[in-house]
Amino acid sequence: MTITIVGIGLIGGSLGISLKENGFAKRIIGVDVVKEHVDKALRRRLIDEEMSLEQAVPASDIIILATPVDVLLGLLPKVLDMVDNEQVVMDVSSTKGRLHELVANHPKRANFVSTHPMAGTEFSGPEAAIPNLFDHKCSVLCEVSKSAPKAVKLVRELYESIPMSLVQLEPEAHDVHAAYVSHISHLSSFALALTVLEKERDEDRIFELASGGFSSTVRLAKSSPDMWVPIFRQNRDNLLDVLDEHINQLAAFRSLLIKKDFDTFYKKIEGANEIRRVLGGASG
Amino acid sequence: MTITIVGIGLIGGSLGISLKENGFAKRIIGVDVVKEHVDKALRRRLIDEEMSLEQAVPASDIIILATPVDVLLGLLPKVLDMVDNEQVVMDVSSTKGRLHELVANHPKRANFVSTHPMAGTEFSGPEAAIPNLFDHKCSVLCEVSKSAPKAVKLVRELYESIPMSLVQLEPEAHDVHAAYVSHISHLSSFALALTVLEKERDEDRIFELASGGFSSTVRLAKSSPDMWVPIFRQNRDNLLDVLDEHINQLAAFRSLLIKKDFDTFYKKIEGANEIRRVLGGASG
Repeated sequence: MTITIVGIGLIGGSLGISLKENGFAKRIIGVDVVKEHVDKALRRRLIDEEMSLEQAVPASDIIILATPVDVLLGLLPKVLDMVDNEQVVMDVSSTKGRLHELVANHPKRANFVSTHPMAGTEFSGPEAAIPNLFDHKCSVLCEVSKSAPKAVKLVRELYESIPMSLVQLEPEAHDVHAAYVSHISHLSSFALALTVLEKERDEDRIFELASGGFSSTVRLAKSSPDMWVPIFRQNRDNLLDVLDEHINQLAAFRSLLIKKDFDTFYKKIEGANEIRRVLGGASG
Repeated sequence: MTITIVGIGLIGGSLGISLKENGFAKRIIGVDVVKEHVDKALRRRLIDEEMSLEQAVPASDIIILATPVDVLLGLLPKVLDMVDNEQVVMDVSSTKGRLHELVANHPKRANFVSTHPMAGTEFSGPEAAIPNLFDHKCSVLCEVSKSAPKAVKLVRELYESIPMSLVQLEPEAHDVHAAYVSHISHLSSFALALTVLEKERDEDRIFELASGGFSSTVRLAKSSPDMWVPIFRQNRDNLLDVLDEHINQLAAFRSLLIKKDFDTFYKKIEGANEIRRVLGGASG
């Protein structure tokens, strides 16, 4: 099996490592417009060789598109134009609605399998690629009814080889869910970083005291705007809904602080503790 | 050196482990109003023996008060009443203003050294105590001018034995800093958990997709209201200031989404990325 990965960053590079190590791919071809990324990916052996897109696509059984989502809107139709009936094109993107609209009537739509492996870190680029990033995580398959059954089967085998579990969602449902379990976390973290950095301008040494809890909540604020602005742009409407709800929740806490109603405050924290059953881990 | 720890939870228990393991304490006496905590602490060898407060205080060189901050307001004056000139009383609490006012004129004020070791997890109780929680973290010493120099020296030696670094702050500055680098992270996390749990009522399966980023930002939402509501109550005014700033930051993002001004959005994320120089870690 020869696999081309277009966009050899955190996600593309980490997939490359997993699929080569577990034997699913015999050969990994890397395509990236950033020459420095290609060089790093070769040095780190994330890919076996470099090619142009025009060379790589005909040489591949599967083409994985792992670019930022704005680039993907131009790339996916172009790659679908290039493939024959036996080849499979797969994306790994964090927003689905616009992408699916864009290729809804493409003559090669059935060659395309839309996926979103739910894993990542706050880092980006080929230097951020790590083994085991996806192990035992969940990947979404979107609108599989539009893909050829044999293409879906191959993509399933790809993810199950890592191993990852699979969930099927329609594009609209995916984008709502992603806004809740991923995009708002990033936006909240960016806002929290700005809140504290704003304060730091007046006060030296504020960060000497930062402990694990602080690092945990603002970790995602290190994430790249090149990746995230296109996601927020494409998932704007859902993100606005979640953001409104989040601001409402913070405003409710604010109101309770102003009223000094700490009994209700206590009950709300007990409600928030319900997240334990989702995240797992011992309660205390 | 005999040390009594009053309140053998995450913080008290973890301190007990460190100070016994490194030899700073020869004997650790545990005091806790919750019988179950004492039993667990004995079984886990967090403490060498159990005593009542009245027995433990006279037997100790240092008394560490590690209860929730509301309980501490009653406990500290009581313990100070009990000690002689050679004994040192130390707290580990997350808010300082009210506590310092309370004992400002206590005849044994000089025996008290006010500290806040900046470390923790989202868990609580003796089962949450872990070795190395405090290693190479920072502890605050508050208003040391009011403590006897020999008491401060002993407490410095205690923290440096772990080892921890030390920072001196006045109570007011401590409470402002703690609101920024700890308390708002917890409040944001509680609100984020409630935001997502609210959605979950309508939609099944939303959490199958939750990945590392989500866990990271909502991890603190598992934290105990018994610990946190008293902190929020005592540090209410500072917390309100930070919360207002945080809501403003989120509202600014909201406004940019509504206006589709993604250029400014990009610049704001670049600004948030500045948190990298504080948190350390590679950028991507």
